[in-house]
Formats: sequence, C-alpha cells, structure tokens
Amino acid sequence: MTEDTALFDAADLHGSLRDPLLGSLGFLNEVMGRYPEAISFAPGAPHPDTLESVDLTACVDRFVDHEVALGATPGQARRRVYEYGPSRGLINGLVSEALRRDHGIEAGPESLVITAGAQEGMLLVLRALFASPRDVLAVANPCFVGITGSARLLDLDLVSIDESPDGIDLDGLAAACRACRAAGRSVRALYVAPDFSNPGGTTMSPACRRQLLDLAGQEDFLVIEDNTYGFTAATDQALPPLKALDTDRRVVHIGTFAKIAFPGARVGYVVADQPVAGEVGTHPLADDLATLKTVVTVNTSPLCQAVIGGLLLQHGGSLVALGRRKSALYRRNLTHLTDALDHHLGELPPAGITWNRPRGGFFVRMRLPVPADAALLEVSAQKYGVLWTPMAQFYLDSSGERQLRLSCSYLDPDQIDEGVRRLTAFVKGEVGS
Amino acid sequence: MTEDTALFDAADLHGSLRDPLLGSLGFLNEVMGRYPEAISFAPGAPHPDTLESVDLTACVDRFVDHEVALGATPGQARRRVYEYGPSRGLINGLVSEALRRDHGIEAGPESLVITAGAQEGMLLVLRALFASPRDVLAVANPCFVGITGSARLLDLDLVSIDESPDGIDLDGLAAACRACRAAGRSVRALYVAPDFSNPGGTTMSPACRRQLLDLAGQEDFLVIEDNTYGFTAATDQALPPLKALDTDRRVVHIGTFAKIAFPGARVGYVVADQPVAGEVGTHPLADDLATLKTVVTVNTSPLCQAVIGGLLLQHGGSLVALGRRKSALYRRNLTHLTDALDHHLGELPPAGITWNRPRGGFFVRMRLPVPADAALLEVSAQKYGVLWTPMAQFYLDSSGERQLRLSCSYLDPDQIDEGVRRLTAFVKGEVGS
Repeated sequence: MTEDTALFDAADLHGSLRDPLLGSLGFLNEVMGRYPEAISFAPGAPHPDTLESVDLTACVDRFVDHEVALGATPGQARRRVYEYGPSRGLINGLVSEALRRDHGIEAGPESLVITAGAQEGMLLVLRALFASPRDVLAVANPCFVGITGSARLLDLDLVSIDESPDGIDLDGLAAACRACRAAGRSVRALYVAPDFSNPGGTTMSPACRRQLLDLAGQEDFLVIEDNTYGFTAATDQALPPLKALDTDRRVVHIGTFAKIAFPGARVGYVVADQPVAGEVGTHPLADDLATLKTVVTVNTSPLCQAVIGGLLLQHGGSLVALGRRKSALYRRNLTHLTDALDHHLGELPPAGITWNRPRGGFFVRMRLPVPADAALLEVSAQKYGVLWTPMAQFYLDSSGERQLRLSCSYLDPDQIDEGVRRLTAFVKGEVGS
Repeated sequence: MTEDTALFDAADLHGSLRDPLLGSLGFLNEVMGRYPEAISFAPGAPHPDTLESVDLTACVDRFVDHEVALGATPGQARRRVYEYGPSRGLINGLVSEALRRDHGIEAGPESLVITAGAQEGMLLVLRALFASPRDVLAVANPCFVGITGSARLLDLDLVSIDESPDGIDLDGLAAACRACRAAGRSVRALYVAPDFSNPGGTTMSPACRRQLLDLAGQEDFLVIEDNTYGFTAATDQALPPLKALDTDRRVVHIGTFAKIAFPGARVGYVVADQPVAGEVGTHPLADDLATLKTVVTVNTSPLCQAVIGGLLLQHGGSLVALGRRKSALYRRNLTHLTDALDHHLGELPPAGITWNRPRGGFFVRMRLPVPADAALLEVSAQKYGVLWTPMAQFYLDSSGERQLRLSCSYLDPDQIDEGVRRLTAFVKGEVGS
C-alpha cells in the first residue's frame, strides 16, 4: 500500500497501538517467517501431536445428549449449538463441577462466565474492576503480555512486582500498596500465575499462596489468578490453586481449554464469585462480567462450547483427565530441554550464563551477560539457525534486557536436542566471551 | 447469594455497568422468562428454521480441501483448524472475494479482520480510532445498543444524530461536527446501518449515501457501516453499501455471518483499508485492528472460521447465495407482520398509533400516544400475552419513550397473526383511549 496517501498517522490512533508490547508478537512472527529452517524456541504454541482432528459431530452429539438428560428437548438442545446463547455461557455447569472435583474450587455455575479464551476473561475482569483512574493494576514482573496488553487497551496504570523464587515479592507488593495509598491511589488487583508463570516458569510456594491471600485481605485488593499452565504439574506435585484456598473471595480465577483441549476453540472461563451489592440484593461479580461480555463478543461460540463440553464429557467431566496426555507430553519436553541444556552447557557454561529449571509450564528462562535484543536474535537466527524470545517485552522495566525465553512446547525431543546444540554454539560463539 | 456480605458495592465497578442500556437485554430476558406463553415480538433472534444442524465435518473438510488447493499440505490445513491462528483471520481471502462479487466492495484480504461476531468488530474499530478524550462518536438515533454499549465500555463520549426518512439527518450531523469543533473536540466517526437499521428499520437513500460520504470528507470523520441486515433486501431493491461507494476510504465496513449462516459460530468481519502512516511506510487500518484483537480474543476461533468458510464454499463463495433462503424467510415474515398490522389495526387505528413499513430487516417501529415503558410491557404481557421491546433503550435522549419495537424474525406466520391480534387488543384496551 506504499503508493497510497495515508489517511491517518499512527499517532492519531489509540496509544496502546504504539506500545512495543502489542507489536512484539508480530515481530517474532516476522523473524520466524524469514528463517523457516531455524529451530524455534520462540512460540508457546501447542505441540502438533496435541492437534489431532476432533470428531466434531460426536462431540456435539455428546453435549446435546447431556443437555437432553438435563431436561432440554432434543430440538432445543440441538438449536442451542447454532443459536445465540446466554452471555455467561452454556457449559458453566460442566466446568463448575470439574473445578470442584479436579481442583477443589467450590463455585457454582452462576459464578462462572465462559469466555472467548482466557484473554477475553482478562479483559472483562479488568474492565469490571477498574472504575477510577486512581485504580492501579499490579502485575508480576516478568509478566504475560496478554494481561498488560489488555490493561493498555483500557488505559490502566500498572505497577510491577518482582517474582521471587517463592512466587511473588510480598514485601514489594505491600510496599507498592502503601505507596499507592500515599499517592491517593490504590492497588485494585494483582495479576499472577502461581503455577508455572509465563515467562518466568515460577511456582508459588504453599506458604507464599497463603500469605498473598492474607495480604489481599489486609490491603483490600483482588488477585487475578491465571491457571493456564497448572495442568502441566506432575500429579504428585500439583498445588491447590489460589482459588481453592480463597476463603474470603479475594481471587478471580481464569482458566482455558486452549492447552488441555485445543486453542482453535477459543474457550476459557472465569470464576468470579465475589458478591456485589446492587440495587436489588447481591449478585456474583460473574453477572457483571457477563453484562460486559454482551458488548465485547455477545457470547462465546455455542458451537465451540458444545465441542469442548463434549470433549469434557468424553473424559468423565474431568479437566485433569482431558489434559492428562498433553500434560505428560509437555513435562517430557521440559525435562528434555533442561537435561539438554545441562548436557551441552552445564559443565562449563560461559561466564554469566544461567538458566532456571521450572517444575512445569512451557518455558525456561536463560540469563546472558549481554542484551538479548533484536540484533542478537538476528545473529542467532542467521548464523546459528536457532530462535528464542527476548524477555524484555515481558518486563515493565529494563531488568529483563539480558534474558531470553526458551519454549519447548511444540518441538519434538530430537528437535530440542538439535536446537540446544545450536544454542550452545550461539552462546559460546557470541555471548560467552 | 443474599446471605453473603458483599465484597463490593456496584458503585466500585466500572461505570458502564450502571448504564441502563447494558442491562436492557437482561430485563427483556427476565420478562420473557416470566411469561413463557406470551407471543414475543421482542428478540431479534434468528428463526428456528434457519438453525438446522450443519454437517460440521463436511464443512471443515471442504475448507481444508480449499486450503490444500491454495498450497497447504493436508496436515497443515487440518492443524490450522485446531491451532491458534493469525489474529487477522483465516478466511479473509474467501470473504474479500465474496464482498467484491456480491457487494462491489474492493478490499483485499490484507484489509480484512475476521472477528468474534460484528460486536467484537465494533469494539476493535472504536478502540483503534478513539485516541483522545476530545474524540466524539456520532451515532444514529435510535441506535443499536451494541455500538453504544461498546462505546460506554471504552468511556467514549457520544452525540446522537436523528435518523431521517432518507437515512440520517445530514444537516444535524454537520451541525454536530461544527459544535464539536467549536468546543475544541471533533466527531471522529459516525456509526450507521444504512440498510434496515436496528431498531429504526430505515433505509438510507442513494442520494443520502453519497452526501454522507461527501460530508465525511469535508468534516474529516470516518463512517462505521454496519451491514448486518443488508442481506434481507429483495434482490431487485438492494442498494450498494457505503463501502462500495467509498472512493476516499472513509468507510469502515462491518458484517456478520450470524444471520446469513448461524449466530453460534460468532464470526463477523471488518473491512478497514484506510492507509495508516507508521514507522515504516503505510499499512491498512486492519493491521491495527488485528493488533488490538490479540489482547481481546487473540484470534477468532479457527474452528468456527473453518465451518463458516466451508458453508461459504458450499454456496459458491457467495454471501448472497449463502443468505438467500434466510433472506426470503425474513422478508416473508416482515411482510406478514406489516400486512397483519394493516389488517387488524389499519382501518381504525386508535388515535396516535402509527407504525412504519420497512423494506427489510427484522423490525417494525410503532409509536404510541403513551410511554411504552416497563410498566406497560408488564400489562401487555400479563393481560394480553404479547411482548415487545421498549424503544427508549435505543435512544440517547428521551425521544423514544412512546415507541416500541416489533421483531418478526423468529416467529411463524400463524404466530405473527395471533401476536398481532393480541397486540391489537392491547393497544385498543390500554393505549387507544
């Protein structure tokens, strides 16, 4: 379109569009497109083996049968798949029961909203909670760009709280609450992913979970819990989500079927059981999220909900059973990646190069003695045939400039081996001197 | 939840949640729930006959074959259905070609974004365009609540421009532009549905279409065209959409598959070919919408896009062919409704009762000599067994208080007859004195 006269300047559009973090995905895709032969540790995409074709008709039929068993006529149940539907969702009962059985989260269907992926859930929660320019969103640092991006779209102010080996820096969080209050503002909510954060790979310890909930009560903020990667925990190591410990209803819990079923359905959910005093009695916060959803996407595709509902029923109504095979695959890959790093780089890592060993999730974080920026990525891609994600985009400050993220999710073990060999050559050749 | 201590007051949540228009849908559903035996002219829902089951597997297979014909391997094409996808969409090429052939809209795939229904398209367009608190959104009065609701969610200021028999009051619009400018503000965009507006039922005349585009150039605003109901035009009466007349790229065109295919897919599209000057050359506004979409819903369900793409291919790639049977059904219903009103109320309508006779769309507007409010709706439901939508919610001022909207979309002719008989008894008994 270079021959066109521009109708606008980019400066005429909303400020979020000039935020580098909203453009970071496009940048990575562009680099990957230019180096198709490179092994890419960049995207946190699902493994191709998890994307086998689904028998759509059988899934929908199973969901329709379920609805009929609950009292719908076959015609009604079938039409619901194709019709508009309630903005709160169609499969709330199935998800509510699964959360209770699988994760100890006690929240009725009326406290759930089914969303177009976890991403829409984040936008709805932020929009409902942030009523005043005085409100501030605290986020873990580093942080998933989906939540910071949604916050930018809504012009919300952010404060970042460092992750700690135990989860989140609670002293820093308490200090941020005090600093906001002193400035006439308030921390309205904290976003955190306690189980294998993206990109940090951090697991929040049981003690930190309880202390965080205590602090939320003392400082009067909500906790937005993102449980996207929780399913990758080894069965004997799974910790209760914050929401299962939440006796004071301080936690809004966000989950997704993107990883345990498939991303192309775009089905996620929000648990928001916080009682809101309205004009007539109290109602759960989920009602307000559903109201906002009517002017975002109206409702989550009933067709997709029926397919996901059918898959859930096929696995006995269990999120854990639905995700079991994928969980094992991703754990295998993560172990393979960290083992390969140990094997190739472990004995004599060049000075200043370290990496973590997460217990789950898709990502390993590596620290370099030099900036892991676009220029270095270009060298890595062109000269060594290996791609990764610069971590700077996940930080609100400059503390991530010398870090990169390695995703193991969509590679096979032999690709991981070869990728780590290339990565080893890259760090020894370019950054280890 | 009345036993719970509220954690928030509703006043602690975002202001849009206290806007009556966001609650209006809930109110209507609640009334309908209490009077299940009433005949309801309230919802603009699709007719049940249009919600026949779709052969999902065949649709997806057809789309996959199409992708293979374009160069994908069968495995790639199949995985695209289940994977994340580009935020701009998967079926842009199919929709671009259909818009060209069916509607004379020349816009390449790179100028389109596939959205989670028209609703998400509206939110993305508003978010991209409204950069400053000085920007004002002009809307037709009366107006679809989806656009005003999205504007509320983003805290945008609105100015309403009366519909006229010809479309929109252009003098009023020019005056609003001048008034905004005098106040140091500017009308950034006008939302309008030229083909059978919801709820007004208005068709914009060819002359008004051209004059509106001229004015947009003179006053430097964009036109957001909602073409949801355009498909209901009789073949020999269809007018070119504004976008087909848009030589200066002033029009952002929004469409949906909800009515011509089925709502449960939640697939719509935005044509945004406006050149934006960025850091490196110009790009179409669609790129910015796609960027914003990454933090709203990431991407529109590829599964749903594949199903819709398959349906489109099944109909020779034509939107018109896909919607033809449904268009005829809705035209039959609309004619049936206006004929029934003529038949039962036409000869001696009680004083002050009039209605329009739209040439398409789902809705007839009736004016009463008394307020058509919640109390009157309750009487209509309880005593006469007939429901309708108060028009006040569609107005930004009080000028709609004595109007109601009748939807004919999801009733059968015999239900329309019986409904109009009840409506006649209601107006003669309650409002004609």
